[in-house]
Parts: sequence; C-alpha cells; structure tokens
Amino acid sequence: MNRRNFFKRGSLLTLGTTLLHPFSSIANTIQYDIEDKNKKAKNIIMIVSDGMSIGTLNMVDLYLSRKTAKCSNWLQLYKDNKVSRALMDMASASSIVTDSAAASSSWGGGVRIDNGSLNVSKNGEEHMPIWQKFKQAGKKAGCVTTVPITHATPAGFCINSKSRNTQEEIAEKYLEQKFDVMMGGGNNYFSPDKRKDKKNMYKVFRANGYEVVKTRNDMFSASINKPILGVFEDRGLPYSIDRDSNRELVQKIPTLAEMTQKAIEAMKDHPMGFVLQVEAGKVDWAAHGNDIAGLIYDQVAHDEAIQVAMDFAHQDRQTLVIITTDHGNANPGIIYGKEANNNFDSIQRYKHTNEWILNGISKETSISQIKERVRFAQNFALTDEECKQLLSYYTTLQTEDGLYNPRHLPFKVLAKIQQQHNSVGWISMQHSADYVELALYGPGSHLLKPFIKNTDLHYLMLEAAEIENKF
Amino acid sequence: MNRRNFFKRGSLLTLGTTLLHPFSSIANTIQYDIEDKNKKAKNIIMIVSDGMSIGTLNMVDLYLSRKTAKCSNWLQLYKDNKVSRALMDMASASSIVTDSAAASSSWGGGVRIDNGSLNVSKNGEEHMPIWQKFKQAGKKAGCVTTVPITHATPAGFCINSKSRNTQEEIAEKYLEQKFDVMMGGGNNYFSPDKRKDKKNMYKVFRANGYEVVKTRNDMFSASINKPILGVFEDRGLPYSIDRDSNRELVQKIPTLAEMTQKAIEAMKDHPMGFVLQVEAGKVDWAAHGNDIAGLIYDQVAHDEAIQVAMDFAHQDRQTLVIITTDHGNANPGIIYGKEANNNFDSIQRYKHTNEWILNGISKETSISQIKERVRFAQNFALTDEECKQLLSYYTTLQTEDGLYNPRHLPFKVLAKIQQQHNSVGWISMQHSADYVELALYGPGSHLLKPFIKNTDLHYLMLEAAEIENKF
Repeated sequence: MNRRNFFKRGSLLTLGTTLLHPFSSIANTIQYDIEDKNKKAKNIIMIVSDGMSIGTLNMVDLYLSRKTAKCSNWLQLYKDNKVSRALMDMASASSIVTDSAAASSSWGGGVRIDNGSLNVSKNGEEHMPIWQKFKQAGKKAGCVTTVPITHATPAGFCINSKSRNTQEEIAEKYLEQKFDVMMGGGNNYFSPDKRKDKKNMYKVFRANGYEVVKTRNDMFSASINKPILGVFEDRGLPYSIDRDSNRELVQKIPTLAEMTQKAIEAMKDHPMGFVLQVEAGKVDWAAHGNDIAGLIYDQVAHDEAIQVAMDFAHQDRQTLVIITTDHGNANPGIIYGKEANNNFDSIQRYKHTNEWILNGISKETSISQIKERVRFAQNFALTDEECKQLLSYYTTLQTEDGLYNPRHLPFKVLAKIQQQHNSVGWISMQHSADYVELALYGPGSHLLKPFIKNTDLHYLMLEAAEIENKF
Repeated sequence: MNRRNFFKRGSLLTLGTTLLHPFSSIANTIQYDIEDKNKKAKNIIMIVSDGMSIGTLNMVDLYLSRKTAKCSNWLQLYKDNKVSRALMDMASASSIVTDSAAASSSWGGGVRIDNGSLNVSKNGEEHMPIWQKFKQAGKKAGCVTTVPITHATPAGFCINSKSRNTQEEIAEKYLEQKFDVMMGGGNNYFSPDKRKDKKNMYKVFRANGYEVVKTRNDMFSASINKPILGVFEDRGLPYSIDRDSNRELVQKIPTLAEMTQKAIEAMKDHPMGFVLQVEAGKVDWAAHGNDIAGLIYDQVAHDEAIQVAMDFAHQDRQTLVIITTDHGNANPGIIYGKEANNNFDSIQRYKHTNEWILNGISKETSISQIKERVRFAQNFALTDEECKQLLSYYTTLQTEDGLYNPRHLPFKVLAKIQQQHNSVGWISMQHSADYVELALYGPGSHLLKPFIKNTDLHYLMLEAAEIENKF
C-alpha cells in the first residue's frame, strides 16, 4: 500500500495552500487583483498565433518540455496562475469556421462579418478598426507579423476593406492612418517593381516621415523618434526553422521576438501609451501545409515573443497582454502508439520544413537525391516507393494559384509519410471550428469570463483601457 | 462609420460591469468565493467524457446551439462564470499519450503509471484508489458509466490491477470494497453464462446485501436503502442515438443522466456525504470509430448528466462538481468550406450511428440496400462506387479481436465518405496527447490553477473534502 503524506506529491503546494491555511491562496489572489488587475491598461499587447489548434499549443509545450526541461512561456503563465483564461467562439457572420480576415475583424471592429472581408459588413457598413480608435484616443499603435504586414490579421485591426485581397490598397490605407510601427513581409505590396500601379510605397512612406527598414540590422538601428515601416520579404518571412538553418536569412530577417522588442522600444515612452498586435502568421501557413517543422518552430517563435511582451509587462505593470489564436487549423495531434514518445522527439532533430524539402525537388530529381534531402532535413528514411509517389507530383505541376500552396506541391503526401515517423496526424489542410484558447495578463484581465464570443474581446480591450466607444 | 454606445454590443455587460462601476464584478466574485468556494466539499461528483477532444466539446456546443438555440450545459457554466477552468496534462508514466486506465489511475491513485494498468506501478507498488480513501473516511462511493462498469475509468477510482483486462476479477474486487452504487454495462463479467469461472456474480452481490438491477425500470424502483449493482448490457450500453431510435432499448437501458440521478438519490442522504464518478464512456468508442453520430449524441448524454449533477449541487451547496475528459481522441473538427454550416447541420437529421449502419451490412447485402440503409440512418446518398468500397470489406471479415472494432468493419472508409456530407474530419482512430479541458464548480474549485498535471487532481479532491491522505 502506498502511504504518503498529505499532498506530498501534489503540485497544489505551490499554490501556497497548507494544512493550516488551506484557503490562504484566495487572499493572495485578491491581493493580486487589487494591486494590478484593477488598474487601467495604459498599453495593450495582443499576441496572436494564427491558426493554432489546441494540439499545436500542446505539441510545442511538450516539444520544449522534453527538449529543454522548460515548458512554453504560454503555459508557464498558467502554471504560475498569472492569467485569466477563456475559450473563445471565433465564428464569422457567414460560417461556423472563420477565415483570418473575419476573425481579426471580429476583434478589430467588434462585429461579425463574412469571411474574406475586413471590417465591412455584407450591407457595406464599415466598422471602425480598434487600432484607429486607440490612435484617436492618443495612443501609438502598431503591428508586427511574420506574414505580409498587409495580411488579414494585422489589417483587421487597422483598416476597412471589402476584400482581404486588396493588399496594395491596404498598404496605402496604413499610411493614411499613420500607424507607428508596421513590420513583417509583403514587399510585393510596397515595391514599385511588384505593385500593379508601379507606385513606390517606400518612397511615399519616407516622404511622410517614416523610417523604412528592409533588413534585421536596419531594424535594430532604426530611430525610435520616427514611425517605422519594416518589410523584410516579398511575401511571408521564411519559416523559423529554415531561417535558423541559413546564415544569410539569419542576417536579413528579424525574428518575431526581435520585431516585438523593437516595436515596444519604439512606442513605450509615449505618454499616452501604445497598442501592439504581434502575429505568428506562419503557424497558420504551416498548418495549411501539414508542415510539422514549420508549425512547431514558428509556434516557438510566437512563444519567444510572449516572453518579450511579458518581460515588458512585468516591469511596466500597466500593460494588458492578450495571448490567443484566431482559429484552429488542421487540428494536429500526437497519436497513441508504442513509439509515440520517440517518434515525437525525432522532430527535435529536424533542420528544415516540408516546404524546404518539396521546393528543392523537381521532375529531374533522382530517387537517391530525394532520400538524401529528406535524411538531411528531417533524419528519416524514405522508401523508393515513397520517393516515386512524391516525384509523380512534379511531372504535372500546375501554374501558380491558390493562397497557401501555389505550386500544388505534395504537402499532404509528405505529411502522411512522415506520420509513421513522428506520430503526428492532421484532420485536413483547412481551418476548423474549434473554440480557441485565450489568456489575459495584467490590468483588465479580471474582466474575462471563461467563455466569450470573439466580438466581446473588442469591447474588453476598450474597457480595460477605459477608452469610450464613441465611434 | 459605425457609431455605437459604449459596450452596446458587448456581452461583458452581463458581467455586471457598468460605466459607473467598471470593476464591480470583482467584488461579486470574491463574495461568491467566500460564500461557497471556501466551504469543505461534503460530496464530489466527477463527470468524465472519455476521449473527448476539444473539437468534440465544440461540435456538441454548436450542435445544440444551432438546433435548440441553447448551448451545452458545460459551456453555459463558463458563460455564467460559475466554474474554475484548467488545461490538464494527462500523460502516463509510459507515454505522452495515455490510455484510459493510466488516465483514471492518475486521478485515482495520484501517481502516473504505465498505460494498461490500474493503480499499480511498473515495480508492483500499489496506490490506494481514491474511492477507497473516501470510503474509509466514511463516505458512500459509486460509479455509473455507459461502458462496462468494470472498464478502465470506473476501475481506476476503485481498485488495483496490473492489467485493465481482468474485468472478471475487477467485478469481484468491487464487491470486496462494498461500493454503494455501481451501474453500467458489463454483463459479460458478472453472468455465470459468460464468465470463464461460471461464477454467478449477481448472486454473490445479492448475498452481500446488494440490490441487483438489469433494466431501466428495475433501476428506477430499486430501494435506496441497499447498495445497488446495475448491469444493463453484455458490453457497453448502446449509443444514445441508437437507443433513442429503438423503443425496446429505450425501455431497457437507462440514460447516463438517469443513472446519475438514481446514484445521487441513493447516496445524498448519507450523513458523511458521497463521491460519484459519472462516465460517458462511449464518446471514446465513437472517436475510435470516427463515428460522428455516436460521438455527438453520447456527448449530449454527458451534458445532460452535467445538468443533473448541477441541479443537485446548486441546491446542496456542499458538492464539488468536476467536469473533464481523460484524453483527446481523433481530434475531430468541423472543416472550413462553403458548405460547412449546412453540412454540419445535416447531423441533426441522423437517426443512427455508423456502427448501426455497418453492423447491418453483410456480404449478401446489395448496393441498393446499402444506399437505402444510409439514406434511412443519415439522410445522404452513397454512390455505387462507395457502396462497392464498403462491401469489399465484408468478403474478408476477420474473427473477433481488438478492443474497439472487433469485427474490423470499415469505419474509416465510411467516415471518409461522410466527410463530404458533414464536413467533419479526424486525425486518426486513436487517442491524442492534447491537454484536456477541466472545469470545477463549488467548494474546492478555487484550488484549481489554470494548468495542472493529472495527478494534481487526486490531491485536489482530497484537499477540497479535507480528507487527510494518511494511506
């Protein structure tokens, strides 16, 4: 028989509960509420992992715990009892499964709209985006992301557009609103070589007083006395794991945490405070590709941005930090089996994404070259049959179309092959309707109920900052 | 431009927050804490949906909201801000993906053990199951479930066994411990016709003072002055939707809510209080079969049991209610697409599970009969090709083995076909490592931190009830 002392093994001890004062934790909680949570939020930092199913959060926490013996920053906040949590229903006006534009608009405009639009209802009604409300209230406002800065999630906080696909116009609308820090990918929508109208948006931003940066070092040295536009790639930034395995990319492309740090530095001394949206946008792209290395390492990048935000918020004590995602995507998870632990741990040895593997194959590639490429990138062995199956897709590659896999590469096939080696499964290559995880730290966090609608978060941000919604 | 009053559309209003007293909700929360949460828990009701991925919770809430305009009881508790929530890490000693035996043992014995065992560590050490601890502290204790009462989840709270597969012995061990209400399926492990040793366990239970019931009406009329053994089927009870479509089964088999109600009635007047585990065990079986009608309607049955428990707990005010699941399974979710809403709503018209469909097919069944059967059961049309694909599995059906699909029926194929019609996807037919949702209501609920290990819940239950862990 197992005889143990009271709570010997229970981590509840860390709550501060004891035999003598079993309920003393309540007093601590109240104290914490009164000191910090009841304050007005001078600043808000919202950190979004785009398209993060609960399984993604779980896998990254397990990945980090098993590799480094330290869990994710996100879940450490839970273990330390520092945040309020909720599930959030992200449905749009048109579907129980949202896209990123309607999702960001629900937070941004406070109204559910149809998938594909940005803060414009079906009847044409426009809803003022929340970063404009905060600008009018005197705060600085910005967004940083790993996808084009003109993409749905930042755009939903900043502008109105009937369609998310008008990214060239969105770049111009950002300038009209004079946002203070806008950084990510999206050169295609700023460069005269790429834009349909050949307009040089960089020049226009500079003429309007912006510091324009295009490399990591330029970003580090940019003056914080000017608004900043940072654009580091044509489309999205490279996946974190591919960047980290390439010295040239490491030089050129900042991490999400570095962009977050710079944005905070550039805005934190503003007397009226600031609001910042941070997006790990390629977590979603990785889920669309069932690309586990892209997913995990970009979610780790998101987690590192959380640390930057929390370091600031801990010191500042006037900053509401919001951590969430806009929808599930592909609902990945680790599947039961004798080798589940070892298989999952094999991802620690991955050097590159599936995208990197597949982009390096052409119809001229030999079977042994494919084997070598996969062995190098992810340390497992393909069979001849599997190589032939992959190769078969390259004889008929189509012209570019589609949002997430323009070359129609065999992402699905590769993920299915990988599953035998890493025990990770996916339900599809699309968004899911799952309610999403939401965590709030700091002033205003006590306003959160355990289940909310996406639009509630719009009003919570305004209430936390005591900004009247006169718009 | 959209001009609205402050919080006009925000459901935050229901928090009791107003312009004048934006933070008054805090005071209410504290009041609630002091009045109810700080009490000692005289009773505990733990309601487990076995194998419920977050997508299952989401789909059932959407299903109910769209069909009845009333959300699930589980999430209504969140909306009403009545519970504490956490994510819970359910890993076992042997794997990041647990089975139900190790999962229940982690709560039951407070120690992580290998998959497949019940409160026995690899080295043979036995950990006293929590319902035995509560019995020794003078409380009544019971379990009700929709799978065999000797199955892993109830057994993990009640007994020690090196293997979960010793269900005949587990039936005998229940008697040794004199549990007060044990109801579910499992006639195979009690009946002299079915047990290997031909022992009549019903007779033995009766000889030891038990009321033995085998039908719903017998259960209703059973005396509450005796301990109750209720066994209503050979293995698991029928899926809720198949039961509800069959008058004979409705007569014979109680619902999970009805068993819960009876168990509470039978134990609630005990001066020292009671503990009850309620398990919706076939949610897990449905996930193993990618069987959406089984999954949704059995999760609804779980939700109805929550209502029964909450009705009692609201009145009683000394009952800790724990609502959770033991692991994810198959990570189902509604997949993005133009027809997602209509497709998902089509499940409202289902009359039977995939199991019912597939068990009615044999190699002699014609294509038109298969079409008719599916049209009757789930109201969609199969193609000839799809019928042939299903039929091909029946020419080579294997002998019975395996835990969840002994006849090797083509569950996977049918779910894949269905996906075009209901937009629901699955990652596998197995458990996942996802952290699980946990909610606590009533006295002791304030002890919960936002992230815990499975074993913490063992100690939380003891602490909430102020039972010293002297064992």
